[in-house]
This record gives sequence, structure tokens and C-alpha cells, in this order.
Amino acid sequence: MEKDRSSSFDPMSAPRYSELATFFRAPPAQSAEGIDIAVIGVPYDGAVTNRPGARHGPREVRNMSSMMRSIHHVTRRNPYELCEVADLGDVRFTEIYNVLTVISEIESFYSEVVRHGAVPLTAGGDHSITFPILKALAAEHPIGMIQIDAHTDTWDSFQGSRFSHGAPFRRAVEVGLLDPRRTIQIGIRGAQNTTEGWDYSIESGMRIVFMEELRDAGVDEIIREARRIVGDGPTYISFDIDGLDPAFAPGTGTPEIGGISTVEAQKLVRGFNGIDLVGADVVEVSPPFDQTGVTALAGATIMYEILCLLAESVVRRR
Amino acid sequence: MEKDRSSSFDPMSAPRYSELATFFRAPPAQSAEGIDIAVIGVPYDGAVTNRPGARHGPREVRNMSSMMRSIHHVTRRNPYELCEVADLGDVRFTEIYNVLTVISEIESFYSEVVRHGAVPLTAGGDHSITFPILKALAAEHPIGMIQIDAHTDTWDSFQGSRFSHGAPFRRAVEVGLLDPRRTIQIGIRGAQNTTEGWDYSIESGMRIVFMEELRDAGVDEIIREARRIVGDGPTYISFDIDGLDPAFAPGTGTPEIGGISTVEAQKLVRGFNGIDLVGADVVEVSPPFDQTGVTALAGATIMYEILCLLAESVVRRR
Amino acid sequence: MEKDRSSSFDPMSAPRYSELATFFRAPPAQSAEGIDIAVIGVPYDGAVTNRPGARHGPREVRNMSSMMRSIHHVTRRNPYELCEVADLGDVRFTEIYNVLTVISEIESFYSEVVRHGAVPLTAGGDHSITFPILKALAAEHPIGMIQIDAHTDTWDSFQGSRFSHGAPFRRAVEVGLLDPRRTIQIGIRGAQNTTEGWDYSIESGMRIVFMEELRDAGVDEIIREARRIVGDGPTYISFDIDGLDPAFAPGTGTPEIGGISTVEAQKLVRGFNGIDLVGADVVEVSPPFDQTGVTALAGATIMYEILCLLAESVVRRR
Amino acid sequence: MEKDRSSSFDPMSAPRYSELATFFRAPPAQSAEGIDIAVIGVPYDGAVTNRPGARHGPREVRNMSSMMRSIHHVTRRNPYELCEVADLGDVRFTEIYNVLTVISEIESFYSEVVRHGAVPLTAGGDHSITFPILKALAAEHPIGMIQIDAHTDTWDSFQGSRFSHGAPFRRAVEVGLLDPRRTIQIGIRGAQNTTEGWDYSIESGMRIVFMEELRDAGVDEIIREARRIVGDGPTYISFDIDGLDPAFAPGTGTPEIGGISTVEAQKLVRGFNGIDLVGADVVEVSPPFDQTGVTALAGATIMYEILCLLAESVVRRR
Amino acid sequence: MEKDRSSSFDPMSAPRYSELATFFRAPPAQSAEGIDIAVIGVPYDGAVTNRPGARHGPREVRNMSSMMRSIHHVTRRNPYELCEVADLGDVRFTEIYNVLTVISEIESFYSEVVRHGAVPLTAGGDHSITFPILKALAAEHPIGMIQIDAHTDTWDSFQGSRFSHGAPFRRAVEVGLLDPRRTIQIGIRGAQNTTEGWDYSIESGMRIVFMEELRDAGVDEIIREARRIVGDGPTYISFDIDGLDPAFAPGTGTPEIGGISTVEAQKLVRGFNGIDLVGADVVEVSPPFDQTGVTALAGATIMYEILCLLAESVVRRR
Amino acid sequence: MEKDRSSSFDPMSAPRYSELATFFRAPPAQSAEGIDIAVIGVPYDGAVTNRPGARHGPREVRNMSSMMRSIHHVTRRNPYELCEVADLGDVRFTEIYNVLTVISEIESFYSEVVRHGAVPLTAGGDHSITFPILKALAAEHPIGMIQIDAHTDTWDSFQGSRFSHGAPFRRAVEVGLLDPRRTIQIGIRGAQNTTEGWDYSIESGMRIVFMEELRDAGVDEIIREARRIVGDGPTYISFDIDGLDPAFAPGTGTPEIGGISTVEAQKLVRGFNGIDLVGADVVEVSPPFDQTGVTALAGATIMYEILCLLAESVVRRR
Repeated sequence: MEKDRSSSFDPMSAPRYSELATFFRAPPAQSAEGIDIAVIGVPYDGAVTNRPGARHGPREVRNMSSMMRSIHHVTRRNPYELCEVADLGDVRFTEIYNVLTVISEIESFYSEVVRHGAVPLTAGGDHSITFPILKALAAEHPIGMIQIDAHTDTWDSFQGSRFSHGAPFRRAVEVGLLDPRRTIQIGIRGAQNTTEGWDYSIESGMRIVFMEELRDAGVDEIIREARRIVGDGPTYISFDIDGLDPAFAPGTGTPEIGGISTVEAQKLVRGFNGIDLVGADVVEVSPPFDQTGVTALAGATIMYEILCLLAESVVRRR
Repeated sequence: MEKDRSSSFDPMSAPRYSELATFFRAPPAQSAEGIDIAVIGVPYDGAVTNRPGARHGPREVRNMSSMMRSIHHVTRRNPYELCEVADLGDVRFTEIYNVLTVISEIESFYSEVVRHGAVPLTAGGDHSITFPILKALAAEHPIGMIQIDAHTDTWDSFQGSRFSHGAPFRRAVEVGLLDPRRTIQIGIRGAQNTTEGWDYSIESGMRIVFMEELRDAGVDEIIREARRIVGDGPTYISFDIDGLDPAFAPGTGTPEIGGISTVEAQKLVRGFNGIDLVGADVVEVSPPFDQTGVTALAGATIMYEILCLLAESVVRRR
Repeated sequence: MEKDRSSSFDPMSAPRYSELATFFRAPPAQSAEGIDIAVIGVPYDGAVTNRPGARHGPREVRNMSSMMRSIHHVTRRNPYELCEVADLGDVRFTEIYNVLTVISEIESFYSEVVRHGAVPLTAGGDHSITFPILKALAAEHPIGMIQIDAHTDTWDSFQGSRFSHGAPFRRAVEVGLLDPRRTIQIGIRGAQNTTEGWDYSIESGMRIVFMEELRDAGVDEIIREARRIVGDGPTYISFDIDGLDPAFAPGTGTPEIGGISTVEAQKLVRGFNGIDLVGADVVEVSPPFDQTGVTALAGATIMYEILCLLAESVVRRR
Repeated sequence: MEKDRSSSFDPMSAPRYSELATFFRAPPAQSAEGIDIAVIGVPYDGAVTNRPGARHGPREVRNMSSMMRSIHHVTRRNPYELCEVADLGDVRFTEIYNVLTVISEIESFYSEVVRHGAVPLTAGGDHSITFPILKALAAEHPIGMIQIDAHTDTWDSFQGSRFSHGAPFRRAVEVGLLDPRRTIQIGIRGAQNTTEGWDYSIESGMRIVFMEELRDAGVDEIIREARRIVGDGPTYISFDIDGLDPAFAPGTGTPEIGGISTVEAQKLVRGFNGIDLVGADVVEVSPPFDQTGVTALAGATIMYEILCLLAESVVRRR
Repeated sequence: MEKDRSSSFDPMSAPRYSELATFFRAPPAQSAEGIDIAVIGVPYDGAVTNRPGARHGPREVRNMSSMMRSIHHVTRRNPYELCEVADLGDVRFTEIYNVLTVISEIESFYSEVVRHGAVPLTAGGDHSITFPILKALAAEHPIGMIQIDAHTDTWDSFQGSRFSHGAPFRRAVEVGLLDPRRTIQIGIRGAQNTTEGWDYSIESGMRIVFMEELRDAGVDEIIREARRIVGDGPTYISFDIDGLDPAFAPGTGTPEIGGISTVEAQKLVRGFNGIDLVGADVVEVSPPFDQTGVTALAGATIMYEILCLLAESVVRRR
Repeated sequence: MEKDRSSSFDPMSAPRYSELATFFRAPPAQSAEGIDIAVIGVPYDGAVTNRPGARHGPREVRNMSSMMRSIHHVTRRNPYELCEVADLGDVRFTEIYNVLTVISEIESFYSEVVRHGAVPLTAGGDHSITFPILKALAAEHPIGMIQIDAHTDTWDSFQGSRFSHGAPFRRAVEVGLLDPRRTIQIGIRGAQNTTEGWDYSIESGMRIVFMEELRDAGVDEIIREARRIVGDGPTYISFDIDGLDPAFAPGTGTPEIGGISTVEAQKLVRGFNGIDLVGADVVEVSPPFDQTGVTALAGATIMYEILCLLAESVVRRR
């Protein structure tokens, strides 16, 4: 043990399996002060409609994110040199069985992050967590969103609750957090019992790119469409891991076959560079259903790809 | 396909992997009318404090219970000849995110079962479900209980909720469902952050048999003690699968090493024959953590052992 | 428990993990009378040449099929509104070790289904089961077939048996059940010890689309070719899950890398809409080799896609 | 690569994961000539009544048996110094779907082994294989047997077959291969649909030690009883891995909880030293259900323990 | 996010799956200054002779140790109230392929811990790491040791190396770190290719308790023997997880069936209370072979049990 | 057992799960004499930088390679008819902890193979093993190489070692084994902490085809480029299984999402037919991380594809 243990240590070059697992081996921080990009876990899956387990997502994504290194092989840019990145730990809950308190505590946590001027990058947790994150990020005016997902998550209520993981973006439009005309939903697929979610997305002005359109038009065209939709305004990326095909991401609560490959997903995400990004999340990684670990690895790598975009946004905004 | 397909078919002698999986391959029923023992699933894990997944318990226990046959090798008694057994399906929920509604719907379901005079045998679900089951069974006067478990589940509140899976028996005593002096808790172990649960059990008059006492005194002695405690009155058996050691039951939410073996568990359960049993459950089987299936198999077999006891109780009460 | 428990319950909107697992949560039925599409399990793998386990396929496909909902996201059609769908249970065997009896009992079961005018949709079991199904369906005149598979299954004999899962379509041509000129085999690949199966397919008049042709010509072209081959006559779809790549379907007995993706498979199947379909199966899902469950999920979803086609065929034939 | 590669190589001291996996890293042999103990695989599971997979047993037991070393820690004896041990490969089948041919080919293989004077030690395969092994070993006069198993395997017929894995010892008594009065069955447990198997064992004169007797009387007493039963005559050991509890051996077709621990199993087997052993098998290891590998490891280690006994028998007979 | 985020947070009462995984949720520390018990990971498995993976042990043991709470249910003592406990992170390596440097860096790390007066509690890593730990702890005079293990680890060399995980205690005796007359090895079993390790242990004066002696004499007697052997002097506990039976700890490199149960292990460890303990380790947890997680859970719980003993030693030495 | 057991047996047509697992069921051989293509295992993973387990690769690839048959479905050529193929076993190590000895022993083994004029086809092991293989193959003059891989493996040193699995091709260029201008690296991707590996590859004259170029240009174009680069000279193929996407190959030490599919990989490899191939390897299959077995299956099949190419090269050189 060195006397000054932390000063000389480069966690990025240590063996990947060593030390505490923080997101990307970034330093832990107790506050967002002085941080450009705050990486945050939200270990909550109390709003799922099907298989649980996403509460274990932040830990396992942290674990797998040790495999991520620093310099992106396409851009040759190093996000950690561009800005300050830290692991802010997990949102802490005092009433995990009370969805309204959960929403309030998530919002409160992210409001502090926003107050410090940091950009949040989140590992879920189920998709319900994005609603309170948007409450903090879009408190003053609605923002745009690029959502990669198998489901629109604009359904109204499930089992009497308006806050399930199938509803966050309907709620967000209703209270003016999301600008539906600046919202695009990519990778949507799978049968439904009613058309109400699809209908709501379209009627509210969102652009749905069903999986078949992505397949036929190609990723390049969908990137162009996404950039056209979100334009120059502040934009959030929400990546539900079930947007990927179950071969690439079996460990999730509501898998749908016929999804996006990781090759496509990486191209898609990189295509969003230059958009004015104010935050992002990767949600619905459920480790108990991820025996081979490929889902958590995909989640961690997509987070790294988005981290690179966020870092460029931070630099541009300086 | 035979003309009268169901009449000539003996599901117990068909290949175990065939047909719809009902509990023990018993016939499905839509009502408890005419049923002596109603086997019921409660697919709810919204009250866990740690790892989820017990919502998937009833399906997988049904699946594994196909391996159970009819004649017990020790008693040479066949419960299906002693009484009518049926799979009553699962409790149906209309508000799975609202614990009070969940409790109310479970109670309502079991009240109907009780009204028909059937004895309920339940596959959970997390341990919180036993409280509403007791509300239905002990609506008129408190009953006794033999609980096999790693935890007393008499803690007060967790994360602001009084209805977590760590609290059902405290609640049950408070509202007069359980007679604590006729309650014994066997297999208790594992560190805790406060002593309040242990204290409550003891102060309310329950008998705790910590794992060390079971190990040192032996199963025979604990059977005697349990019979002494519950006496002749109506008694419920609640078997939390985490009472077993994780080698025998890894697939559960809060495993504790140093637990009961299946050899001991079977001897223990058989030792309760002759007690006036009014119902029973096996809870906390969590299939996502049960890669080898031994937990669901243990759960199904313990249910079969208890089914044999319930059948004898039914016969005695005739 | 409601008084009239079954009347008010909508299984499609209940939590997907609850209740007995029937195919697609469709109602169980004891007879095909009044049923348009009979979904059937054939839990038999006694004719495999390599890894077993497909006997467990029907149960696990039923389990995963709970995730399927009703309205197809591309067609916006709901097969359950178009016609009556029921789970007819499994074919029941009295001599599972005797392949001739097995064949006879499968044929007998399906003959009853056909007699009632129902269209059968089957979950295997190994691919040998399609031969007796065809015996029931094509009893009067040969039918056409679209087969998705890694192997032609037109080999002659294996280990002295003419009824292994590598032989069903050779047998079917020999006895006049299949019209080889109206038969197309898609996705064929993998080394073989003799060319006899490939030779038989071609010499009998079948059209083989090796995986390389599918890859190079594209799915649209193969759909056109398939429609050209089968034409307007009655046609059966047989989907061996090993047609998919092992990344998408690891849980099968004779996996071959370099296969079809689920995106391609769904496009392919949907391209068969309008063909006069008289039955279909999805076979060779082997749960013991499917640790992540993606194979059973793919099998269930492909079955749902085909169910939609069958429903359209039923409607057209009215 | 050394010039004379095989001469200087000591497979027992090489890294355990290297080279071709033979049983115990013993040399492969094409014939039993000059061999004292022939270790043989019988990759057949066509007679199971429930979950398959034991056909993969010999390969995985070979793989795990690499962990076995030479000198027994209790006896300090090295079986490889006492006699010649070789891996004779697997029984080869020409008609795997024809149980009578399978039986005949197994018998024929073992007759050759016996003709060379070698003692066979077998890894199954399902338990049906022991019947033809006994046909070869007891061709001239009936022998005694110590069977460790959850089931007596003296049932009559299943699904119309008299040769399922539940019937071998009934068949063996009927044709005079086994002397039932010199046969003891240890570890029997689990419900059954009829008592016919238990009845046949007892009525024919076999000694059943149900699991409860083993638990209550202790291993030492059961060893004494077994030695009393088999006496000085030639005796076979048949160890069905499902005799072990599923915590110790989850990877098997018909697991029954409440079984023997490995500590007890090793003590039991060692207690049979000095008996005149003419052969042995360990059957029903099913790798597809053995995700952690402990079942194959237990199977391999029990085989090593028995190998040590067989070696002593060989020495005594010299 | 609270302003003073760390001050008000009680990690022990938060949901167990949340936040960064430190050992027992203890605070991370950069130095042993002011720490009574330093919990340390040594992610090194470069000295194994068989299956690797123990390098991943510290991370997964940290993860599972979140399930541990504070007050021991037998003693009702809380080690965190008795003394200061911190997670000191992992030993950092600069030359993981050079065993001599690895040894030197481990020794150096622990020398600093010792210099600060802290007692080290370690999660390995393979068993080779105990040698350099002892170099730091016993730098001035030899100490005693209680070793729970399937193997004596007193073999001389393997594949030309004197520092494999089979040799640490031979090396430790040779250089005067261990007093062999104050060393006891419990749970030893499994065949070996030579007797040299057993011989060395005995000839040097160590006390070997083979598994059979433990089984026959009982845990109480072995506790007495261990206390007699180590006496009042400073003593180290080294717990190789392969001392447990593979049913309880499948995830390890060289499993041996017929081992210690967790019930026995906990009783054994608790029996060492009052001994003058100067450090301890739990080694050889290999997560890649631990699909169900029970091995890491057992490792974490045994560490908690030992932590309680260490805390009592700390208190006594004040 | 036949008298002349080996003469009449055709291992290719026996059930795939039977007998000892040799590569492709080819006969084992003790020497390369008379062998055209020597298939060899190198069970070494002592040079990995991250997750271990590739030491178990040769055994599991052998096991899965039993599924490979003889006649390639595209070329209709049978490599076993074209030339003599044998399983030469594994390289044997005497000092597995000493990387220089390991390198020397691998080189020595392959030098013997080369001396006999056999072409080596290798299953690793980690990628460090290719350096000593090249030492044997290119002892006289540098050769070209087609490398499929996620990483260039031209990094300089890691943790003080110049021989990690990230360095073999830098070392090979430095000592004149590889002609960098005749070397192409395909599928490269993933972030890095420095650019030194990419820089070295480019500056030394290698051609890197990053994954994005493969995706955009297509496989046909990359085949043309590879053929242009390696030209007519002697060429080696080194296929790191992590070149495949983790959906197709989860079982490897340093997975990177966004990789090559098996459809692409097979097309790519087949495109190399006609190149003058002098050897090949498939490395980094790590069975402990390959729960579904698809990685070992992919490795075995890619080896078969390459075997077909090697056989054609052998024939051409006659």
C-alpha cells in the first residue's frame, strides 16, 4: 500500500477486474459540484409490468463497465480528457414501495445535479425512472428526446397505476416536460393489446420509427430523421436495452425478438453526435436474466458511446 | 385425440413433462366448491426488501410439481384418494403496485376458499402474502402457526412500509390473527441491523428456534417442541424456502447460509402430522435465481409433504 | 375469488407471469369442436440424432408465449378477434419408446382436429413429429410446404431407423403427403457426411434455398420464390428453430452457426401472408440448452407470427 | 513435441484441463486384453421416463474425472499401481432407437470385456443399461448387488415398455441374473403412483433401505447390513446419481430431495471394501441439467472411490 | 441528493442491491490509518494449478457481502460498534505475470496495514496470496494458523514453481513465518499423486484433521483440538472455500466432494472466538464457476463470521 | 466390443455425443508423421489481461467439434478425403507459470510438426500462443497473416510483460516472423487507453480494417482487400473469437460489442480459399463464460471452415 495511495494510481490501466466497481472506473463523488458529467445509478424496478430485476442493473453495469477504456476508436477522442466525469452513486430511496415518493426522490436528486450544472448519465432501473429525471432536467421548458426502445412507453395506465414503466413519456408530455414534436421513438415493435400507446405517440406529435422502417430505410436514414426531428434544441437520449434484439440483450424484463443489433445501435448512437444533449439513460438491464453477461456489457458500452457524445456537448457549450 | 378426451386420461401416469403444468397435475378448477384442498398461486413479490423474482414462483413450482407422484413412500397414503385436490389458479390482482389493494384481493380470494370449506395450500410469492391469507383463515379467532424460515418476519417497517415481507407476522399478531403463544419459528438465523424482530417475537410470546438450537437439539426434539407449542388448536404452516440452506435452495431473495437440509425439512414436516392444520404455504421461491431448478423442486416437494398432512387433517375433521 | 371466476377475467391483460401457462394465454379446450385454430404441443424427442430436450419444448414455449399480446404491430390485426383460438393440450402417448405407435397416435390426434375443421398450430418436439401431422392433414392429397430449417430432413435412415428427425420429409414425399414441387426449404446449411439428403430434395423436385442464397438474394427475393413455388394450393409451414442462428436460438439439438436472424425470420414469415395455409409447426426448441430463454421466446413469437397468418387464412376460407 | 511423445508423459501430473479427456486420464484402449479394470461409457438415455440428457454423461464424467488423482487419502493406496486400468471408450450402437438391439449391443460389448477377464466400471447413461451389463457379468450364475438409488427400479412396465430405466432389476431377477436375497437397495425415497416396485423388491427378497432408515440408523449400520446381505459372493455396485440429494447432484433426470450427501456416499462406498466386486456403474448423470458441474464431479469421484475397491478385489483374486 | 450526502446515510439499512459494492457496505478507505480491521481484496489467481477465476473473487464477494447485516444473531454483538472497519480496496499489482513481484507487492501492502496496527481480513484470490500476507504479519516471529481447506497446500513445487497455490504453507514454514506445531489443517481430503504434502505437514509438526476425523469426532471436538494446538499465541485463520463441499461452494478451482457443510463451518469458526487472532482470509472463490452465487455468498458470510472474531480480538487487545 | 474394434468403426457417423472427444472426431496421433493437417490444442491462458478461462478452450472446442461433419455444403468437398487429418493432442508444458518456457515449449512442439511437413490448425488458449507458433512456422522467412479480431494485439507491454495476449504480433514483427505489409487485421474495435497498438500496426505497414469499414464496405470488398494484401505468399490465419460479436461468442475474455456475425465470418473465411495457407488458429474461447456453448460451437465451426481451406492448400502444394 503506497503512502499516498490514490494519487499515483491510474484505474484505467489496472487489471479490469480489480478494485471497487465504479462506472467506467471513474472516481466516486458525493456531490455534482465541479463535475461535468455525473454518472448515476437508479436501482428501482418497482414499476415493471412483467419480469423484475432491473434494480440490480446499476451494480452489474458498473461491474461490466470496467471493461470500457478511454479513447474511442472511431473519433480518437477521450471523454475523460474533455471533461470531468464522476460516479455519483445511486439515488437513495426512503420509501421504495411508494411510487410517488420514489418519483419525488429521483427528481430531487437530479435537481441537485442540474443545479450544479452537471449533465446526468444514468443506468436504470426500469423505464419509469426517466419521468422524474425529465422533471428535473426540463423543469423550465420541454425538451426533445431520442428514444431507442421496443415499446413507446406512452401507454396510459396498467393495473390502476399511471406511473408504470409503460407510461413515462405520456406523463412527460402531459406535464410539459417533453416536446412530442421533438421526440422520436426508434425500434418499436411487438404485439400489444390495444393501440393506445402507438396512437398517443402519433397523435401527440411524436415520430415512431417501427423496427421495420429501421430495417428497410437503414440506420443512416434514421439518423437523418432523428436529427431533423430533434433539431438544435436541448435533447435527451433514453436507451431501453430491450430496443436491442434478445440475442444481444437477453437480460431484460420484456424482451421482443426482431430488434436492433449492437452494430446498428452503435452506429445509431454515434450518429447523434452534435445534437445538444442534456442527459441520457440506459435502462431495463436485468442481471438475473443475463446469465452470460452480454446485456450488462451492451448496456455499459452503449453508456460509454453516449458518454462520448455528452462530453462533446459539454465542450461545445463552454 | 379421444372423443371424450378428459375422461380416460390419468395425468399422474403420463410423462411428467407433458400437458399444461398444474400443481401436482391436479385438475384446474374455477371455484373451491366441492374441493377439499385448494392449491393456489400468489404471484406477487412487490413487498421484497432485496432480490425480486418470487412473482415467477407459482409457475415454476407448478412446472416442477409434475415430478411429484401420489403415494407417500413412508405413510403409503395417497392424498388424492383421501380428498379432492384442485389447482385453483392464481389470485388475480387489479392493482399490483398498491400493497393495500393487493392485501385486500388476496384476503378476498381466500375468504371465498374458506367459505367453501376448502383448505388452502399456497405457492408464493413473497412472504407478505401470508398476512392476508391469515386474514381470511383467522377472521374469527386467532390461530397457531409453525413457521420454517431464516427470518422471523416480525420486523416493524422497512422503507416506510408496514407490509414488507419482513413484517407479516407482526401485523398478524397486532390484529389478532395469530396467537403468538401458539406460534413457533424454526430455523431463524443471520445477522440483523436491529434486534427488534427477534425481540418482538419473544416479547409477544412466540417461540423462536434459532438454527443453532435445531442443530444441537435435533429435529425430533424440535418436533416435540412445536407440537407442544401449537397444541390441539387450528394451526397454519408457513414454509419460507429460505429456511433451507442455499445449497438446497439457492433461488430465493434473501438467502442465509447455515440452514436446514431437505432431509431435515422433510422429517420436520412429517413430524407435524396429526396437528389440526387449516392451511399452509411455501413462499419465496425465486426462479430467476434458481438456475439448476433445485429450489422449485424443493418447494414443490415440501408442498407435497404438506399436502399429505392437510389431507389427513381433512379426513380427521370429517 | 369471484363467484363466476372465468367470465370476467381477461387473461391477455393480466400480469404475464400469472396463472397456468397456456399457449398465448388462450383458453384450454378438450376438443377441437368450434375451434378455428388449435394450438397443440407434441412433447416428443425420441427421434433426435444428437442432443435431446425438445420433449420439454411445449411447456416452455407455453410459458414464454405469455409474453405475446394480441394486436400485431405491423398489420394492426388481432387474430383472436378474427377467429377462435384454443390450447388443445398435448398429444398423449401410450408407448413413447415405440416410434410407430408414436407416429400413429400423433396422426390420430390431428385427424380429429382436421375432422372438426380446425387448423393445427404445433409446438414440438423434434422434427419427426411433422410426418404424422402431415399424414392427418394431407390424407387425401399432397400439400405444399415452406420449411425454414438448417437441415433438409430428407435423409433416409439413421441408426437403422427411417423415422428419425432427419427423415420426415423424405417419408412424406414417399407416401404422397408432400408435393415436392410445391416444397421449398429455406436456410439449409452445415456440413454433412453424405449428400443424400440434399440430393433427395433436389431430385424429388424440392427447391433448396441454402443460407448463402438467402444472404445474397435477400429475404424479399426468397419470399417471392417461396410464393412462386407453393402457389395457390394448400400449404404447410414447418419452422425448425435451428433455422435461426445459435445466437438467436442456442437451445436446440443440432445448432448450426451462420443462420437466420430473428429480424429476417419475422420478415420471411410475414411474407407468406395470403398463401393458403392449412397448418404449421415450430419444432426443436430444447429448453435444457436454453439457459437464457431466448430460444423459447423466439419459438413463441414465431408461433404468434404464424398464428396471425393462419387466422387470415381461416377468414379467407369462410 | 517430443520424439517419443507418449513414453515420457505422465498424464496424472499434467495440468488437469489439458489433453483428451479419458476416464481418470487413464490410457485409451481398443480391447480389454491385458486390462484389469476397463472403464467404459454407455451414452444411452433412450429408456428414461422423464428428463433426458444422460447420453451426454460419459463425456462430461470423463472431463470432470481429470480432477481425480491417484493415491486415496484414507487408504494411501494407488489403484493404478495395483492393476491395469484403461478407458475402453464407449459402447457403440447401430440402432439407438431399438431398445432390444441396444440391450444386445451392450451385452455383447461387456461379454468381450468379461471374456478378457477385465472388471468393468461404467459411466451411464440411464439406469436401463445395467440390465445388459448384468447379462454379460452374470451369464453363468446370479450375482448380488448393492444399489444406491432414490428408486428401486423394479417397476414392471412404463408406456408399454418392459425395459425403461425404472425396470432393470425386475428384469434381472426374472431371468436369473440377480440374486434378490443378495441384493440391497439404499437411499430409496419419493412418492410413487403404485407400490408395485417397492412390493416387487420386497417380495422377491431384496432388502430396501429407505432413506429414512439410512438417516436414523446411520451409515455404519447400513454398511454392516449391506455386507451381511451380499456376503462373500460376487457382487455388483450400481450407483444411480439420483441417490444423492439434488443439492449434491442436480444434474439428473428424476431428482428427489431428501437424499444422501456426498460425505455419506463416500463413507458408504468405502465401507464396501473387501466385498468380492465383479463390476460397478455410476449412472444417470445428465449434464444439460448440471449447470455448475457438481453432478459430473460427484459422479467422477464416486467412480474413483469404486475404482479403488475394484482394484483391491482384483488384487485379492490374483 | 442531499447537500451533505454522506453524513446522513446509513448504508447498512439501504436496499442491499444499491450503491457501490464495498465489503459489508463498510466505508472505503485509502489508508489503514485509524482503522482497526482492514478488509482487503487480492484479485490474483496466477498461481492456480487447475481452474482459474479467483481473480474475480474480491468483486463478487464484495457484491454478495451487501447481504450481510451487523448484529450477530448468536452473540448479539455488532462488530462495527466494537471497532473501525473499512474496505481498503484491492492490492495493486504492477507485474501480474511475475509471481515474485506479486508476492513482494502483496507483502508491501500488508506491511503498511500492519504498520498502522490494523488487522487484515482478506478476500482472495488463490491461496498463494497467504504466503506474502504471512510475510507481513509474521515478520518478527512465527505465528500459529487454523486452516480450513480440502488440501494441505504444503506441496513443494508444481510445474517448476515453488509458489503455486499448493505450496504457500510449506514456504511459510521454511522461512519461519508459521509455527507448524501451532498449525492445524481441517477438512483435508481428496486423492493426491504423491503423499509429499501430507507428509510435510505431519513431519513439520502440523496437525492434519482429515475430513473423516471431522465427520467422526464432530465439530466440537475439533474446535477443542484447534484451540489446544494454537493456544494463546497470535494466530491466523485461512479459510479456503474448497474446504466446503461443492454443494455449498461449487465456484472454486479445485473442488473436492465430501466436504464441510456451511452449518459445520459456521459452528467451527464461532468456536475460535477468544483465540488471539491477528488476521484472516477467505480464498479461492471463483465466480465464473459460481452460476448460482452460493459460493460468493458463503465466502462473504464466513468473512462476516471471522470479522466478528477479529473485532473481539481487537477489543481484547485494547 | 468387436474383436478389431477400431477397424470397422466410422466415428463420423456415430452419435455425435459418443466416444472420446477429439477434434472433429479425427483419430488421435502421437506424432505428425504422415499427417497433412495436425489439429492441436494449446491450453494456456497465462497471458490474458482480463478474464481467464481460455485454458479450458481446447477441451470444449473438441467436445463441440463432434457436431461438425465432413462434406462442406457449399463446396461439396470433404477435407478428410483430400488429406490426412489427426488430433495431435495438446502442447505439454513443464513450467506453466514461466511465460518464456511456455513460449519455448510451444515453439518446440510446432517445430516438430513443421519438420514433418504437417500444417498446424490450433485451438487456443489465449492469443499469446500465436507468437511461438509463428516462431516455428516462419523460422526461415516472414509470412503474411489474416487476423480476425476485435483488437490488433500489437500493444507493447502490459504489467511489465512484453508477452501478454495483447502483444504477439508486435513481437512477431520485431523478430521478423510476420511481414507487416502482408498482414491485415479485420474487425478491430473498442476503446483503448492509448493509440499505441493501432499506431504500431499502421506504422509497421499492417492494414487495419476497423469494424466500421467492414460494415460499410461489406464482406466481399474486405475479402478482395485481404487477398490483395497477402498475395501469393505463405499466409497464416489467426481468428480470435472475440472478433465475433458477444451475441455470437459471449465466452471470451475481452468481449467487445458491435462485432462480426457468424454469417459474415463464414463468408469471410471462405473468401480466403486459394490463398497459400501454412497454418491457422482459433483462440480465446473461454468456456467458463460460455454458459450456452455457442462460443465453443462457433469456434469449432470456424475451425472446420479453415480446415477445408487448409486441405485445399495441401492439395495444391502436392
